[in-house]
Amino acid sequence: MAIDAIENRIDGRAIAEQIHGETRRHIEALSERGTPPGLVFVRLGEDPASRVYVGMKEKTCDRLGIQSTTHVLPEGTSEKELLKLISELNANPTVHGILIQAPLPATINEATIFAAVSPNKDVDGFHPVNVGKLLLGDSGGFVPCTPAAVHELLIRSSVPIQSAEVVILGRGNIVGKPMAAILCQKANHANATVTLCHSRTANLAEHCSRADILIAAIGVAEFVKADMVKPGATVIDVGVNRIADPKAKNGTRLVGDVDFAAVQPVSGLITPNPGGVGPMTIALLMRNTARAAARATGVELESI
Amino acid sequence: MAIDAIENRIDGRAIAEQIHGETRRHIEALSERGTPPGLVFVRLGEDPASRVYVGMKEKTCDRLGIQSTTHVLPEGTSEKELLKLISELNANPTVHGILIQAPLPATINEATIFAAVSPNKDVDGFHPVNVGKLLLGDSGGFVPCTPAAVHELLIRSSVPIQSAEVVILGRGNIVGKPMAAILCQKANHANATVTLCHSRTANLAEHCSRADILIAAIGVAEFVKADMVKPGATVIDVGVNRIADPKAKNGTRLVGDVDFAAVQPVSGLITPNPGGVGPMTIALLMRNTARAAARATGVELESI
Repeated sequence: MAIDAIENRIDGRAIAEQIHGETRRHIEALSERGTPPGLVFVRLGEDPASRVYVGMKEKTCDRLGIQSTTHVLPEGTSEKELLKLISELNANPTVHGILIQAPLPATINEATIFAAVSPNKDVDGFHPVNVGKLLLGDSGGFVPCTPAAVHELLIRSSVPIQSAEVVILGRGNIVGKPMAAILCQKANHANATVTLCHSRTANLAEHCSRADILIAAIGVAEFVKADMVKPGATVIDVGVNRIADPKAKNGTRLVGDVDFAAVQPVSGLITPNPGGVGPMTIALLMRNTARAAARATGVELESI
Repeated sequence: MAIDAIENRIDGRAIAEQIHGETRRHIEALSERGTPPGLVFVRLGEDPASRVYVGMKEKTCDRLGIQSTTHVLPEGTSEKELLKLISELNANPTVHGILIQAPLPATINEATIFAAVSPNKDVDGFHPVNVGKLLLGDSGGFVPCTPAAVHELLIRSSVPIQSAEVVILGRGNIVGKPMAAILCQKANHANATVTLCHSRTANLAEHCSRADILIAAIGVAEFVKADMVKPGATVIDVGVNRIADPKAKNGTRLVGDVDFAAVQPVSGLITPNPGGVGPMTIALLMRNTARAAARATGVELESI
């Protein structure tokens, strides 16, 4: 169902809705037990993209029954003030998840802020403890939403991961590195051979062309071309790049890291962009929030 | 000097002595400032290998001026008792490093124990916070000693790492995964393209044979053969395997994961085993301990 019947396109919106359905049931069960999951967004300044992202997440919270609150702080907020708010949210038992919307102003050290959020409320999975647990194969932490989203897309599209050659383009802290950590584990739906490529990789096209699963998170518009993809390989496009488009209303449009039109005839399953990884990322944030509430109250979600 | 003048052998003992020399100077400077570094070993039961390992580390502490203490607990010690001791050591300001010698008895959860050691005293680099910092590229944590040792061997042998193809055999939490985390970073002496291989990797020999740097930590005696190595590639052997040897005094001997006699004529630089990574691992433990003492007292080691 999730895979388009005619084409080889992975429908991220449909799979996200499956996950939303599961999460909604968990949220209802938690609410009946007196613990409606609570998620707090913190946004600094009026960056238009941050406004849009937080707005989309708020709406999804409403839809699923997560109690969300948004703190909008002025652009000039100091690191100290932000840390004070985080400390209050860490101590508040009705808050199960805390999301500090990046990017933060240059005056604030993001690593300091992410490390200040209680690891138990770190639904973004950015705290070093959660990153460490992920690499160590300890399932007790929180997995960053975007790589977790890609993982769910692969699993729910029945892409064989075990012993697959996975090539990841991009080694960022948000996608590339945690993605490698997920797929290299000795675990079900993992056990892949992972190569992490980046701007300093020699023979990048050669690496791509031996991948059974190619994950592009390199931040370069339409970087992956048809001749870089092994026929039949699964291609996942994480990129979000704004390019000029004279035909578009505001003169620009968003494209991914994969040249979809060129690659789709060659590849096996492939995510469109938009409509692939994007909607899934929010679904995983909602699931992490339900998990945080469940863990805070000692409920086993799997048993609900 | 560290590389044998005639052969392509990396002399791990000589490079370890270089590092010991640097660490000794740091320890002297810290001691003059009133903070002699203190390292505590905790050993459970009388596992012969653990006795030998802790004994070697104690001797090296003596040699360098680190104040070491060893707690030997009975085999039947409970997790709770061990956690109580760790908590006391965490609170003791004269203790800068805590090393719980693995393997622990099966009744004790290693992950729980490693996570109980204060991250600031975790000179083994096993705490999730330190593992997370390593993957995130935050240099404020502690790097596990064996992968840090391999990294220093490469650097001090002038092996080009930037843009190199690195293939790591083995994805353990002690060596393989943190090794990948070190070498994939956007940083000096890193920026490599890393592939992490393991027991479920298809075409393992093919991966090995495209490596510029091949790091074997797979735990299979003499697994890496000449035909798996690209001519001129650097080969680092982390394995410690005991095999039968009728000619040896006790009927066994230790060998690495690399068939040294077969590979050495083909490879570029190569570590012997013993005499390669082993002595380096202790050198990195000593350096981590000096760093822990320096950080605890707010001293910049680089400025000493």
